[in-house]
Amino acid sequence: MEIKTIPDIVVGRLPIYLRALQRMLEEGRKVTSSQELGERLGISAAQIRKDLSQFGEFGKQGTGYSIDYLSEQISAILKVDRVWDVAVVGAGDIGSAVARYQGLANRGFRITMIFDDDPAKIGTEIGQFIVQDAAEMERLIAEANIVIAMIAVPSSEAQGVADRLVKAGVKAIVNYAPISINVPEGIYVQYIDPVIHLQRMTYYL
Amino acid sequence: MEIKTIPDIVVGRLPIYLRALQRMLEEGRKVTSSQELGERLGISAAQIRKDLSQFGEFGKQGTGYSIDYLSEQISAILKVDRVWDVAVVGAGDIGSAVARYQGLANRGFRITMIFDDDPAKIGTEIGQFIVQDAAEMERLIAEANIVIAMIAVPSSEAQGVADRLVKAGVKAIVNYAPISINVPEGIYVQYIDPVIHLQRMTYYL
Repeated sequence: MEIKTIPDIVVGRLPIYLRALQRMLEEGRKVTSSQELGERLGISAAQIRKDLSQFGEFGKQGTGYSIDYLSEQISAILKVDRVWDVAVVGAGDIGSAVARYQGLANRGFRITMIFDDDPAKIGTEIGQFIVQDAAEMERLIAEANIVIAMIAVPSSEAQGVADRLVKAGVKAIVNYAPISINVPEGIYVQYIDPVIHLQRMTYYL
Repeated sequence: MEIKTIPDIVVGRLPIYLRALQRMLEEGRKVTSSQELGERLGISAAQIRKDLSQFGEFGKQGTGYSIDYLSEQISAILKVDRVWDVAVVGAGDIGSAVARYQGLANRGFRITMIFDDDPAKIGTEIGQFIVQDAAEMERLIAEANIVIAMIAVPSSEAQGVADRLVKAGVKAIVNYAPISINVPEGIYVQYIDPVIHLQRMTYYL
């Protein structure tokens, strides 16, 4: 079997396509086209066709894409045709909002634990969770075979938490702390920092 | 004067460089190098030198960069050497977390108003803000000449809110609702959806 490396920027667009397709399914739609997807997303139809063609043949010229089939295929490519357990570290404003966020369901993820090291927070309820002692983090994450975590602690603590998560077996981290963290080869980090997004736009204003 | 178009991907890295430089300043550092910055950020030193060279000459070969000077220059390029007022729409979990978030200060932004259309939320306090009636949104945003807004409403309402923000004069939007929104030419949108970030990583797991 030929293994072909897909550019990271293409991989990064697949979740956007999937989100739009799932929205169309919710709207009761059955068939779409690269034109329609492109208009919804502000991406050219040619780009969408080219991206999808990297992974196979998903539609016939002239008849468009079956939304159901295409979203199943993209889910499988992204490995979100299953449910991944996710641990959240930090039960402050952002960690709490993330833990209560309903938007993970049906998109491949489920938060299963939230940790904090503040004695005033440990044992309290956030949505359906009881905040657990961060001292137990490595053990509980490793026992549950969790490989995905979200960091929502102050910047000064983010690197230390990341190191502990990696030791516990975590392979993919979403970091809400506004600081770059260093992780070993083979561990993936994505950043969510609203200021980075804002500053990207002010350049153009 | 020659006007040169800088690739969007380069513009997108400048906020990351700026964040690292500001962190170094907080650490009391004076001088850095593309090597050190690269190690902190997981970006090659050559890439950093190439990106910065698009905007001018910021350091001397062999002596490195003055952190203070370089961060001032990047701040000016990104137009965050001033403070932009920001409106938040939606006072749910995410909107509230954003409104209370301290990480905007000193990075070019200041949230000045938050809106919701829920009578139970209007008039309540979130951090230092009183939630205002979303019916007043267009008028208050236009009067205050606010050009940046963050959308933190349910997906079903995001497009309608975006349309109203654009009418009120907003030019740049951070959208926390997990849905793509359509805006006229010349309006900028950045998306924050943790699932998109998670799905980007599961592909590699």
